[in-house]
Amino acid sequence: MRAVDIIQRKRDGQELTPEEIGFFIRGYAEGQIPDYQAAALAMAVFFKGMTPAETLALTESMMRTGEVLDLSELPGPKADKHSTGGVGDKTSLVLAPLAAACGVYVPMISGRGLGHTGGTLDKLESIPGFRVNLSLAEFRTVLKLSNLGLIGQTPQIAPADRKLYALRDVTATVESLPLISASIMSKKMAEGIDALVLDVKTGDGAFMKKFEDSKALAQTMVTIGRGMGKKVAALITDMDQPLGHTAGNALEVAESIETLKGRGPKDLESLSLELAAWMLFLGGSTPSLDEARQKVRAALTSGAGLRKFEQIIELQGGDPRVCADTSRLPRARETTALKAERDGRVARIACRSVGQAAMLLGAGRETVASVIDPAVGLTLHKKVGDLVMEGEPLLTVHFNDRRRLDESLALLRQSFTIAPEAPVRKPMIQAVLD
Amino acid sequence: MRAVDIIQRKRDGQELTPEEIGFFIRGYAEGQIPDYQAAALAMAVFFKGMTPAETLALTESMMRTGEVLDLSELPGPKADKHSTGGVGDKTSLVLAPLAAACGVYVPMISGRGLGHTGGTLDKLESIPGFRVNLSLAEFRTVLKLSNLGLIGQTPQIAPADRKLYALRDVTATVESLPLISASIMSKKMAEGIDALVLDVKTGDGAFMKKFEDSKALAQTMVTIGRGMGKKVAALITDMDQPLGHTAGNALEVAESIETLKGRGPKDLESLSLELAAWMLFLGGSTPSLDEARQKVRAALTSGAGLRKFEQIIELQGGDPRVCADTSRLPRARETTALKAERDGRVARIACRSVGQAAMLLGAGRETVASVIDPAVGLTLHKKVGDLVMEGEPLLTVHFNDRRRLDESLALLRQSFTIAPEAPVRKPMIQAVLD
Repeated sequence: MRAVDIIQRKRDGQELTPEEIGFFIRGYAEGQIPDYQAAALAMAVFFKGMTPAETLALTESMMRTGEVLDLSELPGPKADKHSTGGVGDKTSLVLAPLAAACGVYVPMISGRGLGHTGGTLDKLESIPGFRVNLSLAEFRTVLKLSNLGLIGQTPQIAPADRKLYALRDVTATVESLPLISASIMSKKMAEGIDALVLDVKTGDGAFMKKFEDSKALAQTMVTIGRGMGKKVAALITDMDQPLGHTAGNALEVAESIETLKGRGPKDLESLSLELAAWMLFLGGSTPSLDEARQKVRAALTSGAGLRKFEQIIELQGGDPRVCADTSRLPRARETTALKAERDGRVARIACRSVGQAAMLLGAGRETVASVIDPAVGLTLHKKVGDLVMEGEPLLTVHFNDRRRLDESLALLRQSFTIAPEAPVRKPMIQAVLD
Repeated sequence: MRAVDIIQRKRDGQELTPEEIGFFIRGYAEGQIPDYQAAALAMAVFFKGMTPAETLALTESMMRTGEVLDLSELPGPKADKHSTGGVGDKTSLVLAPLAAACGVYVPMISGRGLGHTGGTLDKLESIPGFRVNLSLAEFRTVLKLSNLGLIGQTPQIAPADRKLYALRDVTATVESLPLISASIMSKKMAEGIDALVLDVKTGDGAFMKKFEDSKALAQTMVTIGRGMGKKVAALITDMDQPLGHTAGNALEVAESIETLKGRGPKDLESLSLELAAWMLFLGGSTPSLDEARQKVRAALTSGAGLRKFEQIIELQGGDPRVCADTSRLPRARETTALKAERDGRVARIACRSVGQAAMLLGAGRETVASVIDPAVGLTLHKKVGDLVMEGEPLLTVHFNDRRRLDESLALLRQSFTIAPEAPVRKPMIQAVLD
C-alpha cells in the first residue's frame, strides 16, 4: 500500500477501504507518512467528501492512534455531551454536575475556545486554582470519587487528530464535514463512554450557520457514534443570539452557578436540563426521556447539582467557595454600558460579532497563542424580543485593558438591531436526531 | 499575505493574483512555505484549475526562481522544440542538428524518460562518452561553436518547478493541465529562446490519450509562451503507435542517424522535418513555412544535419564515429523475434504497452531510481496497416537480462492486433495551433 495511491483514489472520487484509511492514519501518526501527503489527502477529502463508512473508519483509526479509556470498572452509565461551540455556551458547567448528581459518570474531555467561541477549559480555569490538566490516572480517581471529571485533551488521546487538526488549520482544509466529524468523534469516543448527546449549534454564532449544514454535521456524527456501538443523539439548537446573559469566562462560571441555584436565565437552564436528561436517558439511567427530565430537574431543585459542582471544583484543586460567593471569581476593574439609541424591540443580536467583541476584550483567543483574561466579557441585559427604551443599557462591558475597547464597543453597537417589531423567535431546540 | 489564505482562495474557486502566486512560489522555493502548504495548493489547483492569467503567472514565478539564460550575444534566432513524450519519439536527435545546420541556435534542455516514455537525455547517453551534464558556461560555449547544445535540466533552471514536480509526484497532483503546462514552460522559457514549437502527442502512447485533452494542453502552453512574448506554435501529433521503428536508447540513436542520412522511416523523417521547419519559421529564419521546409530538407539531403550531429557529439565528449558506424553504439547480447500468429494486417499496436515492454527490458525507468540499459529495446518490423503473414517477425526484442523477458514478450504479444482489415490511418499531424 502506498500513500500516493490512496490520495489518488480519493482524488478520483473512489471510496477508500478501512484498511487504506487505517494505513494512512497510522503512518501519519507515526511520522512515516509526511505532512505533505496528509495535506493532499485532506484537500482531496475537502472536494470529494467521504462516505459514512469512510468517515467511521477515519474516526476509529484516529482514535486508535492513542489511548482509549476503559471505564468499565465504574459501576454505572458513562455519558458525555459535546457542543460544536457558540457564544455564551456554558451548558457543560451546568449539565455535567446535574448528570453526575443523577448517578451518571461524566468523563468530560473538553477543548479551548478559538475565535468568537468560548471553551469549557478556559471557563473552568477562571475558577481560582482549578486544574484542567489532570493526568489520566488523576482523572480516573476524581471520576470514581465524584462521578465527574473535567479535563483538557491530553497528548495520549487521539494524537493523529491533534496532528491532523494543526495541519488542516494551515492548509485551508478545516471546513470539511467528514474531517470535522471525525475530529470531534475520535476524541469523544476515546473517553470510554456509553452514550453521547451532541449539541449542534446553528445560526449566526455557530460554526455552521445554516440549519441544513448543522443537520448534516449532526447526522454524520450520530452515524459515526452508532457505528462505534454507542448510544448517540443530537440536538440542533439555536445560536442566533448568545446563550444566557454572559460571554466571558468568569462571568459565565458565575452565571452557571446561578443556574445551578435555580436562578439562571431560562434559555440556559432549559437547554442544560434537556441535554442532561438526554445523557441520563441514552446512558440507560431512566426508561424514558420524561423520567430523565424529572430526575435532572429534581437534582437542580434540590441543590444536588450545585453540590456536585462544588465537589468537582475542590477535587480538581479549585476554590469551591466560589459557589457560595461568586465575587471570589476574577472581576474586571472597569465596566461600561452600551445604551440603546432608540425605543423599540431587540430584533437581532449579531451573535458572531458579540463573540468577537468579547474576544477583543481578552475573553477569547484570536490565535492559539493569545492569552485569555478570565475576568473580562459582557453581560447582556436585553435579548431578542425584549422591549428597550432609549438610554437603557443593552449590555455591560467588563474590561481591564482599554486598548481594544473602542473596537469592541463599535462591534457591539453594530450587533444590536432595534426595530418596532421583533421577528418571531426561533425555538431553542430546532431539531432532535435520535 | 499568508499562504493559507492563498490556498483557501484557490480552494474556493477564486482567481489568484500574480502577486499571490509569486509570493507562494518564491516562498516555496526559498523554503519559507512548507511542502504541506504547496501540496494543499496543488490539490486545490487540481480541482479548481487556473485561468490563463494564473497559469502564466505561475510559469513566470517558477522560471524566475532560477537562472534565465540570456543568449542575446548569439547572432541569430534561438529556437527549441518540446515534446510531451511518447514511445520511440526521437525527433529531437534529428531536428536539432537539422535546425542548427540551418543557422538556428538550439539551446535544448531536455528531460529523462519515466514509465513508458523515453527521454532525450537517456538516448544521448547511449552514445559512448556523451556528456549531458554540461555547466551552463560549457553549454554557452558549445552553442557558440556549433549552434547546438543538448543538456539536462540543471539545478539553476526553475528550481521551484523541480521541487514542486517532485512533490506532485507523491501527492497525486501530477494530472493538472495548468500545473503540467507551467512545469514544462517554466523550464523552456528559461532557455533564452525566441521561438518554441510544441509537439503535443495524442493517442494511446501519449500522456494525453484524447485529442481534446491534447489540444487543451497545447492551447494552454501556447498561451503561456505568447504571454511571455515568445513565438510559439503547437503541432498535435499521433502517438497511437510508436514513432519510427525502434524503442530503446541506442537503437533510437542509430535510427536517428539513419534518418539524418536520408534512410529513416518516413513517419520519423516527415515529423522531424516539419518540426524543424517550424523552428526556422517561428525563429524568423525564413519568411514562410514552405521556405523553411525546403531549407530543412536541403540540410538533410546535403548531409549538413548529420555533420552537425557529429560535431555536437564530439563537442559534448562523445564518440562521433557512431555516425559513420552505428555498430559502435551499445548492442544487446541477445535478440528474439516476436512472430505473427496469423495472416492479416496490423490493425493496432497498443502503444503504451509497447513502451512498457521496452521499459521492462531496461530501456526505461519504472521509478526515478531505475538504471537504464542503453542497449536494449525493440525493433518493429511491422506498423499499423502493414500486411503480415503467419510466422513473419512483427518485431525483434534486444535484451541482456532474461528476468523480465517473458513479461515483456507477453505484453508485446497482446499489443499487436492482426485483423483482415486495418483501420484508416490517422494523419501524423492531427492539428496545428499557430
